[in-house]
Amino acid sequence: PLTTSRALSATTALRTSLPDLLKPSDTFVRRHIGPTEKDVAEMLKVVGSSSLDEFIDSVVPKGIRLQKKLTIGPALSESEMLAHLKEMAGKNKILRSHIGMGFYNTIVPPVILRNVLESPAWYTPYTPYQAEVSQGRLQSLLNFQTGVIELTGMEVANGSLLDEATAGGEAMTMCYSFANRKKSTFLVSDTCHPQTLSVMKTRASGFNINLKVVKASEITKQDLSDVCGAMIQYPDTHGHLGSYKELADHLHKSGSLCVVATDLLALCVAQPPGAWGADIVFGSAQRFGVPMGYGGPNAAFFATHQQYKRSMPGRIIGVSKDSNGKLALRMALQTREQHIRREKATSNICTAQALLANTAAFYMLHHGPDGLKRIAERTHAIAVLAAKGLGQIEGVSIVGNLFFDTVHVKLSSPVATKVLNTAVSKGINLRQVNEHEITIAFDETSTPEHAVDVVNLFGESLSSQKRVNIDQLTALVSQADLAFPQDIARTTPPLSHPIFSSIGCETDLLRYIYELQNKDLGLQTAMIPLGSCTMKLNATTEMIPITWPEFGQLHPFAPLDQAQGYAELFKNLEAQLREITGFEHVSLQPNSGAQGEYAGLMTIRNYHIANKQPNRTVCLIPHSAHGTNPASAVMCGFVVEPVECDEHGNIDTADLARKAEKHAANLGALMITYPSTHGVFEETVKELIQIVHSHGGLVYMDGANMNAQVGLCSPGNMGADVCHLNLHKTFCIPHGGGGPGMGPICVVPRLAPFLPSHPVIPVGDLTESAVSAAPWGSASILPIPYAYITMMGGEGLTYATKIAILNANYMATRLKSSYQVLYAGANGRVAHEFILDMRPFKAALQITESDVAKRLLDYSFHAPTMSWPVGGTLMFEPTESEPKSELDRLCDALIAIRAEIKQVEDGLIGRSNNVLKHAPHPLSVIVSDNWRRPYTREQAAFPVESLRTKKFWPTVSRLDDVYGDRNLVCSCPPMEAYKSS
Amino acid sequence: PLTTSRALSATTALRTSLPDLLKPSDTFVRRHIGPTEKDVAEMLKVVGSSSLDEFIDSVVPKGIRLQKKLTIGPALSESEMLAHLKEMAGKNKILRSHIGMGFYNTIVPPVILRNVLESPAWYTPYTPYQAEVSQGRLQSLLNFQTGVIELTGMEVANGSLLDEATAGGEAMTMCYSFANRKKSTFLVSDTCHPQTLSVMKTRASGFNINLKVVKASEITKQDLSDVCGAMIQYPDTHGHLGSYKELADHLHKSGSLCVVATDLLALCVAQPPGAWGADIVFGSAQRFGVPMGYGGPNAAFFATHQQYKRSMPGRIIGVSKDSNGKLALRMALQTREQHIRREKATSNICTAQALLANTAAFYMLHHGPDGLKRIAERTHAIAVLAAKGLGQIEGVSIVGNLFFDTVHVKLSSPVATKVLNTAVSKGINLRQVNEHEITIAFDETSTPEHAVDVVNLFGESLSSQKRVNIDQLTALVSQADLAFPQDIARTTPPLSHPIFSSIGCETDLLRYIYELQNKDLGLQTAMIPLGSCTMKLNATTEMIPITWPEFGQLHPFAPLDQAQGYAELFKNLEAQLREITGFEHVSLQPNSGAQGEYAGLMTIRNYHIANKQPNRTVCLIPHSAHGTNPASAVMCGFVVEPVECDEHGNIDTADLARKAEKHAANLGALMITYPSTHGVFEETVKELIQIVHSHGGLVYMDGANMNAQVGLCSPGNMGADVCHLNLHKTFCIPHGGGGPGMGPICVVPRLAPFLPSHPVIPVGDLTESAVSAAPWGSASILPIPYAYITMMGGEGLTYATKIAILNANYMATRLKSSYQVLYAGANGRVAHEFILDMRPFKAALQITESDVAKRLLDYSFHAPTMSWPVGGTLMFEPTESEPKSELDRLCDALIAIRAEIKQVEDGLIGRSNNVLKHAPHPLSVIVSDNWRRPYTREQAAFPVESLRTKKFWPTVSRLDDVYGDRNLVCSCPPMEAYKSS
Repeated sequence: PLTTSRALSATTALRTSLPDLLKPSDTFVRRHIGPTEKDVAEMLKVVGSSSLDEFIDSVVPKGIRLQKKLTIGPALSESEMLAHLKEMAGKNKILRSHIGMGFYNTIVPPVILRNVLESPAWYTPYTPYQAEVSQGRLQSLLNFQTGVIELTGMEVANGSLLDEATAGGEAMTMCYSFANRKKSTFLVSDTCHPQTLSVMKTRASGFNINLKVVKASEITKQDLSDVCGAMIQYPDTHGHLGSYKELADHLHKSGSLCVVATDLLALCVAQPPGAWGADIVFGSAQRFGVPMGYGGPNAAFFATHQQYKRSMPGRIIGVSKDSNGKLALRMALQTREQHIRREKATSNICTAQALLANTAAFYMLHHGPDGLKRIAERTHAIAVLAAKGLGQIEGVSIVGNLFFDTVHVKLSSPVATKVLNTAVSKGINLRQVNEHEITIAFDETSTPEHAVDVVNLFGESLSSQKRVNIDQLTALVSQADLAFPQDIARTTPPLSHPIFSSIGCETDLLRYIYELQNKDLGLQTAMIPLGSCTMKLNATTEMIPITWPEFGQLHPFAPLDQAQGYAELFKNLEAQLREITGFEHVSLQPNSGAQGEYAGLMTIRNYHIANKQPNRTVCLIPHSAHGTNPASAVMCGFVVEPVECDEHGNIDTADLARKAEKHAANLGALMITYPSTHGVFEETVKELIQIVHSHGGLVYMDGANMNAQVGLCSPGNMGADVCHLNLHKTFCIPHGGGGPGMGPICVVPRLAPFLPSHPVIPVGDLTESAVSAAPWGSASILPIPYAYITMMGGEGLTYATKIAILNANYMATRLKSSYQVLYAGANGRVAHEFILDMRPFKAALQITESDVAKRLLDYSFHAPTMSWPVGGTLMFEPTESEPKSELDRLCDALIAIRAEIKQVEDGLIGRSNNVLKHAPHPLSVIVSDNWRRPYTREQAAFPVESLRTKKFWPTVSRLDDVYGDRNLVCSCPPMEAYKSS
Repeated sequence: PLTTSRALSATTALRTSLPDLLKPSDTFVRRHIGPTEKDVAEMLKVVGSSSLDEFIDSVVPKGIRLQKKLTIGPALSESEMLAHLKEMAGKNKILRSHIGMGFYNTIVPPVILRNVLESPAWYTPYTPYQAEVSQGRLQSLLNFQTGVIELTGMEVANGSLLDEATAGGEAMTMCYSFANRKKSTFLVSDTCHPQTLSVMKTRASGFNINLKVVKASEITKQDLSDVCGAMIQYPDTHGHLGSYKELADHLHKSGSLCVVATDLLALCVAQPPGAWGADIVFGSAQRFGVPMGYGGPNAAFFATHQQYKRSMPGRIIGVSKDSNGKLALRMALQTREQHIRREKATSNICTAQALLANTAAFYMLHHGPDGLKRIAERTHAIAVLAAKGLGQIEGVSIVGNLFFDTVHVKLSSPVATKVLNTAVSKGINLRQVNEHEITIAFDETSTPEHAVDVVNLFGESLSSQKRVNIDQLTALVSQADLAFPQDIARTTPPLSHPIFSSIGCETDLLRYIYELQNKDLGLQTAMIPLGSCTMKLNATTEMIPITWPEFGQLHPFAPLDQAQGYAELFKNLEAQLREITGFEHVSLQPNSGAQGEYAGLMTIRNYHIANKQPNRTVCLIPHSAHGTNPASAVMCGFVVEPVECDEHGNIDTADLARKAEKHAANLGALMITYPSTHGVFEETVKELIQIVHSHGGLVYMDGANMNAQVGLCSPGNMGADVCHLNLHKTFCIPHGGGGPGMGPICVVPRLAPFLPSHPVIPVGDLTESAVSAAPWGSASILPIPYAYITMMGGEGLTYATKIAILNANYMATRLKSSYQVLYAGANGRVAHEFILDMRPFKAALQITESDVAKRLLDYSFHAPTMSWPVGGTLMFEPTESEPKSELDRLCDALIAIRAEIKQVEDGLIGRSNNVLKHAPHPLSVIVSDNWRRPYTREQAAFPVESLRTKKFWPTVSRLDDVYGDRNLVCSCPPMEAYKSS
């Protein structure tokens, strides 16, 4: 039997057999699983089952159960896993990268590496929906937005997007939407990064946007009547800077928008696009302290004008005030995201890259305006050194004379391959544009010696006898060579807000990092019981490899023979995901859950098109689906047909059958979540799938609730055709305070030809099908799910699923006498999450689900999911890694809150002035000398005894959402505002 | 000029020259130094100087100034430093160690590695003198003590000692002291670890203890009338376990104490020494999760009976209560340490190994009783496997049949060297006892395959043709082989206190770590202005290398050719320390400041003895000296003669001259601290040194205040003969919440022959002069000072000293209208620290220095040094890495407290019931519904506005020290006590 509790792993030499004794001592399953075997026995009693297997049989319908055990294993111990990954990582060869193309070497300041990127206080929190326990990362994300606004010269910015290429897609569809979908042409300069172009082409196909690749210089000559926008890259993919004011003016004259892809480091010395007329500015913040990580994760930025802020995709942090009028930050315009405009959506964006945006924000604070400017000038100077030296070599000419960090070289004979090979032999990667052209990008880690190396390797390749040294190179450069002409040079300081000059030394920064993190509730403090979000342990052993240089410092477009460690990782992880999902093929490219949905539906769409049935565009989606489902469908060119649910929350089979039949000729797909978003294992799932198949449709299964399936059932086994996986839910990638995520998709063989490919590194069959900037999405965080799966083994994973379901049913059982549990399966069981109905309290007492959720913050818990999938309810998901003691603490809190509600019911306290309505209670309120509440401070602060010795304090009172949305400010207020608040 | 502020590092391409522009962008000096250049200019105005150099000239006497700049440099940038250390580390070859001898491989649980060992929340705090802001690590150290008590079967334990060997020395002198120094013989078994024996011999020489090495079996046959104690090792250095009840009984009959050196992992399965009569039990906790680190740091443990607790050396954490009767922890019996009994001292122990003791404590919690037992049984089983296999080889016999983890092998022919060479060729280190004997130690990281490797390498060396595999080896072992006989086997569970079973999974442990750390104030939260403790930035770049495996996994007795990385580190660091101190030779062996004092004085003592002047035993020590000074002197066999200070706090030159003359024939040494412990650069220091030299004495300079000297003056240049350095003060090793420290000594050439050596790895000329268990003390933390010095360069280090002095004078100037600043130099300047006199408030208002210090906790500061070196005062040391904003915040707090005192002065509030007397105010008091104070909650909690947005809360009220010392309990109370408190 699986030894998960310490109690049962007790052994004496006489009781334990030698082979058992010789097994590793640092096994992982018992570290991951919360309840011990003793706890499990107690919990089974509470739910009324005699064994775990009997219990699971009562929850998961027999008809869908897997008939065999997962063949993953044997489980590695923690130290075995680290050794295994170290060996794998060693197969990656880290050459010095001058490839550029949006990915650059960067120095991660060690104080940020250790205390942000590698800190559970920063990587375990959830998206900051609960502003009262999230002011730390909200401030940091606001710093990010403020920095982006200043560097780009725009008015508003969001708190990051997935990557530069998808940000390009978002910019295009925003232009399309802004033109009310009436102008369907979008122009893109041919010197944008190829991966951005490719992702935009994929996006354009779903919307039937006519994406035209043109020369930037020709845009002013085009007829723009059908053009919603045009995009250029600045500096462009070959490094050239240029003046685009005329172009912007021309676009504006026709009511078209000017979109600019750009680079934050270049903007420290080059004119901000906002200054010359850009309407949308985006790019990657990777080189601000985030390792390349073979492509990701890193934070894209996105900025625009005030007037377009409500059309801006992604999460926006805004300044608001709390119920006491105190300055407080929040996610603004949340309704855009939470209830994505379904059929009218032009974006399904949900996850951001909060952890990486925060890293970039701290990087900006660490260096400040002068430091950043110096890094930019130094990088430029080294590029100039290289250009001067290269220009001296016979057979080499420098293309253009306006560049920031990238030198564009033309060779008089077709020997680019030879030069690249010489470079590789010296440990250097260059970018080959074609057989006559090469570019060489420099960055923060470059040194003058690197320029010397590059010049000499060209010399050697071209058989030039002369080698240069650093003094000779320096002598070629005059001060004038280092300056930009007036229409290019930035004239304003790059970061003028005082916040960016507030950090003088490492002591300052360290204290600021801790000051912010102490305001935020993460998994290191308490359970985060969000429904459908699976906030499980992010074990340290899983996290350690991702900041190893062998995984971090590889350029995504490095030659494949340099990335053999990654190749092995992908191969192994794909095999595991195939086994778990029951599918035959995997794409690791989608870098968020919504991206997975989109990529999965695109494979269905492209399958139908290839099958000569482009008419199959109807997508059935149950009413209970997450808002991203219809949004993703629309983005792929589907028309959404909603399907009803019955009173138990299950999909109405009859309605489904009716609609499938009605649309039989045009039926494209069914999107379904399993177990249902209502937290129930529906018995009918196989039947539903069959109905759709019988009418020519394919079935997409949303992986959000995969944590209830692993090892017990699988999408493939149920008959679905494609599913996505939220690796940041089921497979332990931390939520990072709002990203990164990863959303790979798994498919049946007939869909395999339609999986995403990539324009630079071909990973699939279909051209122009990329969905992310990098071929394997956020590759550098894939060691996390791989380590998790490998350390758990098949048996451990299955056990985890069982415990996740037990945890939910244990809580539901304990709470059912206090609250009404909405929806249950055939045997009265919930799945891995459950819904408590708060509507009766609202109806009778005006106490809302929000009051209860906010009151939970006073009990040192993160709030559960509010009003989704059913308005007026709360949904809880206690994962398998929560110990029984924490489940009990949450049950006790909810039962205590029920007693507080009863006080109102009994008329002992008023309906509008009570401990629930005023929740949460920050210290400033509790300590106030002006306490005028009808309850005591201790009742407010310490409603249960355990809070006296251990309590996490909300830092502000309840936020004023209406005020915040009406008065949207998404950059840091003046410093005085912080002091006075 | 040195660029330390961002403001001045501002540059444009046109303003900065190309060579300047090409310098690295991640320079370190500006990260380390708190004030920016703009701040410095403002501060100079406040202190009334026109430039930094003019200011320094007004502080540091001209006569002692260095005439040349430090030749250290050029400074490396942060990334250059990491690359440099990585390359150096790569020169260490990490073979698999089976050497044993008190140092074992261990698996550091990654969750502990990341969140304790590598976390500033754990490594930056100070020794927990301020219990109200230290309850987290106090609890963890109490857990350590509780674990030690349970495993050893003793009644009380301390919170760690420096290493196993010095703990042996402490045990011996404790026996000596317990016998009132009347029995001067101490017996030691010849099968103790050689390094323990060697350190004890050094210790014995200072006390004139007659240390006799005997066979353990012969102790019962000896005349014990002059024997204060006898010591055995269990299991012994060759791995043998034995029954020692008879021996203990025999010792007790003669009133002698039984001392046992032991191993915590062995005690998980072997009978605890307390069960068979041990009086003092000690050993190393290294293998509980602390990397070997080429010898250190790691925590030694020390346990004894209740009746001896007041004689126990080291820091003891005790259970007490606060002023509200709430359970609270504190350092007990502090008077023993703070005012070490000077001339009657048998110990100078001060620094402990808190960070490593905490690591070991968390390791115990992580594994729990069953997990630890399993690790012990598994390790034993692998040793049995190896022994069985080795026993089959012709020419090999196994010595003894009772062993835990170490197999003792006898060879029939003298081929041990050959076997060891074969082993090294296979990547394995064994221990050679002599040409006929080898031992092989196993540990937590061992696997059955390792046993196979060992058996086969012996086979190969002895030309046996037969190779064994794992199945063959396993078949040789029966269950009975794995069991211990009844008089050896442990019969009680190893860790029965519920706290050790409270952690079930990683989520539990992570939350517990954070729960504890959030109670403690470290440098990541606020300034810790302790006088003479130099709580400066511990920069992340300095910390990163020390947990690299290349530095962590090397055994201290590995062949030197495997430690070339360390050799280079030592060579480079020694050269830097020589340059800084002005001396010619260095020993890196002493692993604490007090150890440095002791080692330094021993060199003087041994010099006189070698010089045929053993009579030179008088040591002059000023009254103002730290208590460790006289204690160290006594331990070296000196007789202390105190020297008076004048009313300015300076050493009374006339008194010194008088006493030097009086003792001229027997004058051994002068111990002096510079700048003085009163915080003043004494003008007369050279004169004092000359007086002592002229009477045949040598001069020891205490390095506690070295932070005011570096680059400006030096002990060597002043004429001293030896100094120690607190690398954990001046050179950035973090204080670790109470250790580790490092106290190397630097000497003039004539003292070089007397520097400490080592019995296993000879590092000096003098036999039997070891002061630490490892040849280079706590080698693995030496990358910290090396990185600091190398990244600062000579110019940066000198600038740091200047700013440290400026910071102190800036504060003293701002505060002098509110408080009386005690002592100043010729120009009214203080050095790098200053003393505020609180005695007037006590005399007039009964407000003590302690009331003010505790009130500072309410302002989110750590308290300064209290009542040392002058009773009734507070001493502040603001280091160079504190930014001006924090200095101002502290000045503002002290000025606000002065206003609170004035309220009492003015009779507006009572003398015994005011905000100072009740300080500090934890949340439980502030939030209480029963607030009955004559001041408001907000006055108590938020006396200055900035605390409303950022406040660190003390977790308990003021501690009851008297109660705690009277009712000393040094193990965890029952779980109910935690809940109810």
